[in-house]
Amino acid sequence: MLIGIDAGGSSTRAVVLDETGFCLGFGVGGGGNPTALGPMRAGEGIRTAIFAALQQARQRGDLGMSGGTAVLAMAGGSTAGAPDVETAVRQVAGVDRVVVASDLLAMFAAGVPEESGYVLVSGTGAAALRVENNTVAQAVDGLGWLLGDDGSGFWLGHRAVRAALAAISGHGPPTSVADLLRDELGRDGEGYYLLRDRNAFLAAAVEKFYQVKPVELAAYAALVFRAAKVADPGDVAEPVPRGFPRDADPVAVEILTDAVALLTRTLAAVRTPALAGPVVIGGSIARRLPGLVESVREPFEADGYPVPPVTIAVDGVIGAAVLALRQVGVTVDRTVFDRIASTLAPLRNTVVA
Amino acid sequence: MLIGIDAGGSSTRAVVLDETGFCLGFGVGGGGNPTALGPMRAGEGIRTAIFAALQQARQRGDLGMSGGTAVLAMAGGSTAGAPDVETAVRQVAGVDRVVVASDLLAMFAAGVPEESGYVLVSGTGAAALRVENNTVAQAVDGLGWLLGDDGSGFWLGHRAVRAALAAISGHGPPTSVADLLRDELGRDGEGYYLLRDRNAFLAAAVEKFYQVKPVELAAYAALVFRAAKVADPGDVAEPVPRGFPRDADPVAVEILTDAVALLTRTLAAVRTPALAGPVVIGGSIARRLPGLVESVREPFEADGYPVPPVTIAVDGVIGAAVLALRQVGVTVDRTVFDRIASTLAPLRNTVVA
Repeated sequence: MLIGIDAGGSSTRAVVLDETGFCLGFGVGGGGNPTALGPMRAGEGIRTAIFAALQQARQRGDLGMSGGTAVLAMAGGSTAGAPDVETAVRQVAGVDRVVVASDLLAMFAAGVPEESGYVLVSGTGAAALRVENNTVAQAVDGLGWLLGDDGSGFWLGHRAVRAALAAISGHGPPTSVADLLRDELGRDGEGYYLLRDRNAFLAAAVEKFYQVKPVELAAYAALVFRAAKVADPGDVAEPVPRGFPRDADPVAVEILTDAVALLTRTLAAVRTPALAGPVVIGGSIARRLPGLVESVREPFEADGYPVPPVTIAVDGVIGAAVLALRQVGVTVDRTVFDRIASTLAPLRNTVVA
Repeated sequence: MLIGIDAGGSSTRAVVLDETGFCLGFGVGGGGNPTALGPMRAGEGIRTAIFAALQQARQRGDLGMSGGTAVLAMAGGSTAGAPDVETAVRQVAGVDRVVVASDLLAMFAAGVPEESGYVLVSGTGAAALRVENNTVAQAVDGLGWLLGDDGSGFWLGHRAVRAALAAISGHGPPTSVADLLRDELGRDGEGYYLLRDRNAFLAAAVEKFYQVKPVELAAYAALVFRAAKVADPGDVAEPVPRGFPRDADPVAVEILTDAVALLTRTLAAVRTPALAGPVVIGGSIARRLPGLVESVREPFEADGYPVPPVTIAVDGVIGAAVLALRQVGVTVDRTVFDRIASTLAPLRNTVVA
């Protein structure tokens, strides 16, 4: 029995599979990032996901209960600060061995069966890796909300809130992001709608935002996409083409265009002429940025490197499953890779979170 | 007896003066901002400054001890969150009345004797005011490190640290700011010099910076000025001319140029055609930015407004003294204003902090 677990900031997904890559059970739990959520809440999210995946697998038939291996994909590729998480996974999953892997490496493995290439991820944070022989050869950015994560969800949300408040205060250009922020704050029922007075609204917003963890500003990234009229691709792994509708808000368009340029720069920094790709793009922000797929190819072209194929990965849990198979010596070729994806898809539709 | 007190984030200055604007005593204490430092430390800084100013005044002759008025200039123009500060000032200063005023308004009054005009301040934070009849008619920005303060010390220091780490990580261009940051961290004796390995250095820097309050990144603004080869003007109220030496670091130059553009935008947002100035520029960052004085005039010119005179204010405590005089009905004309400055100067040289 193998288990792949992708513990992210907002949710954890787990998949139980056999050694042919056939998926038997899938489960979802709350966020599993101990740095962001604390070890208690993260452990709870991870246990819930594993438990649900095992339950679904058992309902569908026998599970070989002798040993097994779990791969736990997490930010940083380590359970530093939450050593108990590994023990908890071993107990809940009933496996002999828990291997902790980088969530970025899992995202790469979720996109392509190759063992070398590049991956660019932008979710709440942002980073790029060069992967060689299934290990991290170079990592760039991923420095967190304060110090880096250029083009990430936090970066977008922070820019969104600053641009909205600048428009209201007067030192920035007018933007529909400001109207969306007013609507958004109005929804929380604390009377922001009543604050027609500019100074009263600003004072209330300042009070609100300095009370929460800065990283929570990542939630406001959605406002930028809405103001720029960019649809949510949902679970579809299709590139969002370059360009914006005519009625897109110019401030929002500038923010998204800057994010694409920064993420392109981050990916460009891990390239080496000796490795022609493939490139995997993952994370809720990267998947939605118009033109990112075209953009990341350009530095390769400009420098005379072979222009790599680019794949969009929707869920890192497939990569955690791939890494689990490799841990037990299974070669994951295109056939095995496609089997994981095709047998996981129907399980997702029946999952009870 | 009158007392003017300017309670800033890093120091508090107090001046004792008579009703002709003649300064009798000057004192310096630690930071007096209760929001940044907590009410205990802020109260201590304020009391120290007042006590030293009174001591110097007493050494120089008799002090009328019957009543008096103190003006306490603070960020936000209120002691919200530290109501005891007012009481403490009344007790230590021995005055009947304590008036709390905006530190930005005091900076305006420190620059010119006029009662209407504009002020742009960039220190740790950044904001602009339109002042009409000695009161705040409009305030723009001043939204704090997370939400605004465009072109402030935090804004510069944050950009500096991000640019340095981006250069080291690889997603940003090389910059001498990175070398200066390495030197700076090396100085704190925690072995950063030993971290020749890129990943080890980045991990150590990440650990360090996420442990301190984000606003402390303002200290690294100095690295940008150094990399751009911009001299420290010290206490001299002279405009720093536009332009950078040939060997200035391009990344640092870009950061400083952006700061000038943002601060110009912030000041431009408080203008009204009916008020021709004057403009006062204050704060340790604004005073050092090359070309800021020329730049802030340009929007006035572009919009066909009268181009205002621009004055640099070095110390808000002069403004607190001006506001104290006005509180007791004294008209502060150029003669009185110049008397404050000229009688304060020799006191500064003899102050024991």
